[in-house]
Amino acid sequence: MSAAPGEPPAAAETPEPAARTRPARGAAGARRPVYDAESLLAVAVAEFNTRGYDATSMEDLSRAAGITKSSFYHHVSGKEELLRAALQRALDGLFGILDEPAAQDGSALARLRHLIGRQVQVLTTELPYVTLLLRVRGNTDTERWALTRRRAFDATIASLVADAVADGEIRAGVEPSVAARLLSGTVNSIIEWYRPGRVGSEQLPTDVVRIVSEGIIPPA
Amino acid sequence: MSAAPGEPPAAAETPEPAARTRPARGAAGARRPVYDAESLLAVAVAEFNTRGYDATSMEDLSRAAGITKSSFYHHVSGKEELLRAALQRALDGLFGILDEPAAQDGSALARLRHLIGRQVQVLTTELPYVTLLLRVRGNTDTERWALTRRRAFDATIASLVADAVADGEIRAGVEPSVAARLLSGTVNSIIEWYRPGRVGSEQLPTDVVRIVSEGIIPPA
Repeated sequence: MSAAPGEPPAAAETPEPAARTRPARGAAGARRPVYDAESLLAVAVAEFNTRGYDATSMEDLSRAAGITKSSFYHHVSGKEELLRAALQRALDGLFGILDEPAAQDGSALARLRHLIGRQVQVLTTELPYVTLLLRVRGNTDTERWALTRRRAFDATIASLVADAVADGEIRAGVEPSVAARLLSGTVNSIIEWYRPGRVGSEQLPTDVVRIVSEGIIPPA
Repeated sequence: MSAAPGEPPAAAETPEPAARTRPARGAAGARRPVYDAESLLAVAVAEFNTRGYDATSMEDLSRAAGITKSSFYHHVSGKEELLRAALQRALDGLFGILDEPAAQDGSALARLRHLIGRQVQVLTTELPYVTLLLRVRGNTDTERWALTRRRAFDATIASLVADAVADGEIRAGVEPSVAARLLSGTVNSIIEWYRPGRVGSEQLPTDVVRIVSEGIIPPA
């Protein structure tokens, strides 16, 4: 993911340098795709999001990648490893925001507004990974781990909403926990319709902050 | 589903009268569940929501129902028939709202506020069915049909938002189509955390209307 200008690189930067997919020649001279960990992950995440994780087999993944199943196993132990790496990337992006100075200093309301705008940025730049995270149902250990981490992130937002209400920075018309859930719901709903390159998408973070600031977290 | 007092019965009422599941004795005297169309549908929808539709087999469904696969096929032709019935029920609930007098008369803003409150009611009373509808990905003809119908419902909301902006009833700070998407996103996000019997849930429709009225559709 790319951090906003002037901000520290977010934790979602993948550990491996991003050597892109390149064509190579096999023994028979036929072109076959060569993957690094990041590009293989992108292929897998697209399949998971299209078919659902449970319904995606290693056969589906190798077919989508255009390599044999045994080549696929050369890279990863199985589909759960790919799921974990994809969910980790989404979680790193989200938790990375919490470490930014503007998320740690200032009033609860100011920190909340920063978090919301940056959350929209992470959702749009890391779209397939966050989409996968938000669709996790908890059927495997990896999914339950991701759900726990996601709930911890949401709890941080909810606690800031409660602080802002307590500080009189937010109108207290609706129970803070309901407001926090609707706030997260509004932000996360973007994954359902946002697509890269959509007209006006560069001002989406500002639009969302504005909409939720005037409604879900109205100034006192 | 139960309609709100004083309102016409919503279109989501199932065609068959709701004879509930009752225990019966098989040839061997062992108790086995007896299903009608509605209760079997409820079992299937719970499985679809837990496993994902693509990953759910007829074996999974008959195991969840506690009947044999051949008994299951006595009721339905296959899982796609159940998917269609479940999605139809959710869509009937939503489209039923559009036929209510308060959705057809009055200002665009008043109709919008009515629709939002009733949409929250349908989401909570028809929770598993609407959850399934909102998770549909479009992998089968039935899913694509449901997606088209769902988009038609969303388009009605979006058109009302645009009308309310044109009439000067809503502040026009954000592009109406973005506001409409965030509005639907906020309402639909309820399925992620609402559970029947939750404390304060009877005032959820009012809370949501209030939150989105003061933000996503603020009065002019």
